[in-house]
Amino acid sequence: MNQTTVGVIGAGRIGKMHTENLVHHIRGSEVKAVASPHLDEGWAESLGIPVRSTNNSAVFDDTEIEAVVITASSGHHSELIQQAAAAGKHIFCEKPVGFDEGPIEEAIAAANAAGVQLQVGFNRRFDPDVRSLAESVRDGEVGELHGLRVINRDPSAPPIDFVLRSGGMFFDFAIHDFDTIRFLSNSEIEEVFAAGAVLVDPEIGNAGDIDTAIITLRLANGALCVIDNSRQARYGYDQRFEAFGSKGNQVVDNTRPTIKESFLEGGVYTDLPPNTFVERYRDAFIAELEAFVKCVREKRPVSVSADDALAAVKAAKAAKKSMDENRPVKLDAAAPPAEGGSSR
Amino acid sequence: MNQTTVGVIGAGRIGKMHTENLVHHIRGSEVKAVASPHLDEGWAESLGIPVRSTNNSAVFDDTEIEAVVITASSGHHSELIQQAAAAGKHIFCEKPVGFDEGPIEEAIAAANAAGVQLQVGFNRRFDPDVRSLAESVRDGEVGELHGLRVINRDPSAPPIDFVLRSGGMFFDFAIHDFDTIRFLSNSEIEEVFAAGAVLVDPEIGNAGDIDTAIITLRLANGALCVIDNSRQARYGYDQRFEAFGSKGNQVVDNTRPTIKESFLEGGVYTDLPPNTFVERYRDAFIAELEAFVKCVREKRPVSVSADDALAAVKAAKAAKKSMDENRPVKLDAAAPPAEGGSSR
Amino acid sequence: MNQTTVGVIGAGRIGKMHTENLVHHIRGSEVKAVASPHLDEGWAESLGIPVRSTNNSAVFDDTEIEAVVITASSGHHSELIQQAAAAGKHIFCEKPVGFDEGPIEEAIAAANAAGVQLQVGFNRRFDPDVRSLAESVRDGEVGELHGLRVINRDPSAPPIDFVLRSGGMFFDFAIHDFDTIRFLSNSEIEEVFAAGAVLVDPEIGNAGDIDTAIITLRLANGALCVIDNSRQARYGYDQRFEAFGSKGNQVVDNTRPTIKESFLEGGVYTDLPPNTFVERYRDAFIAELEAFVKCVREKRPVSVSADDALAAVKAAKAAKKSMDENRPVKLDAAAPPAEGGSSR
Amino acid sequence: MNQTTVGVIGAGRIGKMHTENLVHHIRGSEVKAVASPHLDEGWAESLGIPVRSTNNSAVFDDTEIEAVVITASSGHHSELIQQAAAAGKHIFCEKPVGFDEGPIEEAIAAANAAGVQLQVGFNRRFDPDVRSLAESVRDGEVGELHGLRVINRDPSAPPIDFVLRSGGMFFDFAIHDFDTIRFLSNSEIEEVFAAGAVLVDPEIGNAGDIDTAIITLRLANGALCVIDNSRQARYGYDQRFEAFGSKGNQVVDNTRPTIKESFLEGGVYTDLPPNTFVERYRDAFIAELEAFVKCVREKRPVSVSADDALAAVKAAKAAKKSMDENRPVKLDAAAPPAEGGSSR
Repeated sequence: MNQTTVGVIGAGRIGKMHTENLVHHIRGSEVKAVASPHLDEGWAESLGIPVRSTNNSAVFDDTEIEAVVITASSGHHSELIQQAAAAGKHIFCEKPVGFDEGPIEEAIAAANAAGVQLQVGFNRRFDPDVRSLAESVRDGEVGELHGLRVINRDPSAPPIDFVLRSGGMFFDFAIHDFDTIRFLSNSEIEEVFAAGAVLVDPEIGNAGDIDTAIITLRLANGALCVIDNSRQARYGYDQRFEAFGSKGNQVVDNTRPTIKESFLEGGVYTDLPPNTFVERYRDAFIAELEAFVKCVREKRPVSVSADDALAAVKAAKAAKKSMDENRPVKLDAAAPPAEGGSSR
Repeated sequence: MNQTTVGVIGAGRIGKMHTENLVHHIRGSEVKAVASPHLDEGWAESLGIPVRSTNNSAVFDDTEIEAVVITASSGHHSELIQQAAAAGKHIFCEKPVGFDEGPIEEAIAAANAAGVQLQVGFNRRFDPDVRSLAESVRDGEVGELHGLRVINRDPSAPPIDFVLRSGGMFFDFAIHDFDTIRFLSNSEIEEVFAAGAVLVDPEIGNAGDIDTAIITLRLANGALCVIDNSRQARYGYDQRFEAFGSKGNQVVDNTRPTIKESFLEGGVYTDLPPNTFVERYRDAFIAELEAFVKCVREKRPVSVSADDALAAVKAAKAAKKSMDENRPVKLDAAAPPAEGGSSR
Repeated sequence: MNQTTVGVIGAGRIGKMHTENLVHHIRGSEVKAVASPHLDEGWAESLGIPVRSTNNSAVFDDTEIEAVVITASSGHHSELIQQAAAAGKHIFCEKPVGFDEGPIEEAIAAANAAGVQLQVGFNRRFDPDVRSLAESVRDGEVGELHGLRVINRDPSAPPIDFVLRSGGMFFDFAIHDFDTIRFLSNSEIEEVFAAGAVLVDPEIGNAGDIDTAIITLRLANGALCVIDNSRQARYGYDQRFEAFGSKGNQVVDNTRPTIKESFLEGGVYTDLPPNTFVERYRDAFIAELEAFVKCVREKRPVSVSADDALAAVKAAKAAKKSMDENRPVKLDAAAPPAEGGSSR
Repeated sequence: MNQTTVGVIGAGRIGKMHTENLVHHIRGSEVKAVASPHLDEGWAESLGIPVRSTNNSAVFDDTEIEAVVITASSGHHSELIQQAAAAGKHIFCEKPVGFDEGPIEEAIAAANAAGVQLQVGFNRRFDPDVRSLAESVRDGEVGELHGLRVINRDPSAPPIDFVLRSGGMFFDFAIHDFDTIRFLSNSEIEEVFAAGAVLVDPEIGNAGDIDTAIITLRLANGALCVIDNSRQARYGYDQRFEAFGSKGNQVVDNTRPTIKESFLEGGVYTDLPPNTFVERYRDAFIAELEAFVKCVREKRPVSVSADDALAAVKAAKAAKKSMDENRPVKLDAAAPPAEGGSSR
């Protein structure tokens, strides 16, 4: 099999995970270079990555590298995409591509202009259970869709300095759920009502953010959906999905590390859900990069593009506005296609 | 044990169920009379009820009768409560007591003036699983309450003529959920945002009602709650409850008629949830009347009063207004206590 | 409805339970008399039972009494059945009818001679879940039956003085399982291999009994079944049933007092199974007496007779012999019908 | 990381699976050669394996190859182990090492004489759920062990020609369960009673084998265990494990491909268990080779050796004898250690 040569930009927690997945689990890819301002040399060497640099040009300027994986800090995603596109690299970029439409549209335009692929890290779309739910919705197993429920709760609140640069809970956290709603429904979000609260940690409130939200969404197909977010679920990373329609209801409940069930004097116990997104979406993280590498190799369009990032950020903006003004907010009509046409 | 002599006003589907529960399952009660405009004589005779009439006075004027169970059609509840109170009977009344505050306040005032008990048929409060959830919330098992989720979906939409006189989905159906939220949270509903839709049957829309709703509620204790309603769940009467807080999450899922699980070639099957409220809340319907009869006998205040009906109807009104005006609506400040003080 | 007048012989723990069920839950029955050597007068009076005696003749000699419920200590069951039959009463008798074929055959003969019904307290047959499993086996849902699994574990070992007069674990405890195997399979037990051990309490071994057993059974229809018994399951009264066949497998797992599921920091936990047979088989205990009273009233044969007790005791004897001789043991060919023909 | 150079002997269904796992999933291993009488050249080439041969000497004679994976047809395992040992290779061999003690003892002796590792393919020991159960038994979570239950049912009966050369159900199929019992209990099997039957397919009986068995086992630590085997479970590969002790019971139920639960008009359904051992034990198959490669590299003894194969085959022989003679059979006392001492 032809190897696709990959470079990685950014090697923090998520960057390392993606790199290890590429090295160990994804056939047909070869990581030639990794660039990160505070690169962990020993780690990169142990993976046998030949080029290790603190300078992104080590990736962008290497003509053997066909594709880049961008996991640098969120604020630079759009700029890095534009550089990668200029260098003619296909691009996988972690979410969020940007906190506003502008940078995302610029990224889309750059990728389109360069004729490169641009896939966004909405990992839920590659989770086997979420996929299975999406497929049965599309196959009409629940009939006409009447509603979706997404519960997304982090095990523990992030540090305040992360909160401050995260873009806020709708942009950093619920962004996944907006995309999941679009993915599961195969429809567009038309109107959002977001109720937020600071119930976990007053410091989050002092930082201008919330830690708890109930978001109601009205879709183009008429369905009424609800997203339930919290920054702190003591029992683990709570990830649940439901699709309800004219023929029934389908549920994807939390996964468990083991299926062992213990009947002991104090009660019947099972494992808590996995505690981190790395554990919960382990298979999804591998599958999304596998799909990306395959699309690059086979010159097929990626299945989740920056247009999806744009749609999700529009929903996040509407949610923020809804919360701030305590009223439902309609999403802006889709922006006219960026010059050069849509990347899809 | 002293028998409490009971009369029943209204013997439709629910009236018959309550009467049979009194006769067969509730110790310490004796049904002396039943009055209903279209009384099923054979049924009443088979239960050994001596006084059978189409005229309510057969109940109200019988001085041996200490307590009445009112299940006549919803529009007459307040009026019948007032007549029963005037006759000095203790009263159990099915929900709704009224579709607006006025009739409920008149009912409360009448009961207070007469010094009789007035219990309202919020059956969820007597369901063993819902009670268990309420108790653990109160015991702090989930820590500080951050949210509640109530899913309440009917198996199939009611006939249009029922829709027309039901008061609408918030008053007829979600009313239970507003009360359940108050019961589980031990707090008051402060603000409501209700998104409604007609997704099940356009005729329901033509009748001026909705069949699908997502209702977001903000409580006095800060919790953000959500109610999920539908008039049609093909798989049965969907009744689920969740309490989420700083220490964890507790879930009451649907019950099943049997626990048998079948592993067959086509899949793994279990029973659907019960299909009717009579089956699902069988134990709760018995327990609520048992509690009522006990309160009457022991001259103790009932645990769910018309004040609770009043609070639920305020929430229903706010939900209706919220939907009509597509904005969150704060509940009216509690009405000043009815003359003669609270019935609690 | 005609009331069937009932007398109760024996008012220990089980006797009281049956009496209370008759008084409170079973329509069409009236308990006129209760006789027990150490009768709890206050209890009997509170139930409104007019005749209360320490002498069984108060029941047997009362010509108004049509049916008796015998729950006296196990050693006297056959003798009491014979007395009741002689007095012309229909009989419900708790298991075991006897510890050997002789007394059971005498009881059957007496009932047949008197032309009275004789039902035995194999309560599992009236449990809704076990019934549902039996029905689906009979309806061929699992295809041809290949095997059954019954797990029956007591929450805690009985006192040694009970062990000494209990007849031993096969006769006192596994007797239910032998009957359940026959009920679920609709076939007869042909051969038994019983492996026993003393793992819970050496005192049980000193008393000549065992506390743990695995019993393999070969049925007339070819199925290979297994019974798993223990006198001590710290997590409750473990009651599980499985039917496996050419088309699939059906499972009845343990029940739970509530369905509440708690996700807390230490794990996900649910309720333990009920801790006593009274709780676990509450509905079954009511249903078996309801069925008995109905058969008496409608002059129809009972569905579980002393012939079933005879078959179960044959299996228990074979199990004992198998364990003692450490080899599989075939059941005795069915005894020739008792004089006067079968009671079925 | 140093690569361990591996050769594969035998590339049928299981051989291919192991080879692909080595190539794609197991870090630190490199498959240099594969030899198989009917080698699928295209498959081997696509994996990038440089040496591809129909002759085992291509593996045995290659001095760069440190370790071999033997998956050739069962009858040749011992002979191949001896050749591999003679060539100084460390060995992973699929079960069964042999159908009798003799060949296994010869294999052990050869490995010991050569000073090479010899790991046997008892994959259950590497399944995360089975491991977790074994660990909690060892940690005393269920207290003193009173019993184990292993259900092992194949989805469909193997072809008759496989049955004829398989060694019979105890040696080919239950062999896993004998090992699992030893693994979970950390004790030895002392006595076995096996009841067998032909219920699935009479042709299997004609071939001299059985398709259904209940096996009772008494362990050295006193526990009473039961194995439940069938060659045909229409609903999938049924793999369940239970450990019961003085403090409780722990259960590992079947896994499911997805966790999606569907509430539809006909019932509530979930996925069937995986249909093949490849799917069910996917992680275990990877983990066992990963452990083998690690032991080779770190020169540490393997955790599941041919001594375990020997113990399992002794149990299988006792089971066969028990069934043939319809009586419980004690296992032969452990054979004296093979010359040169134990491989553990």
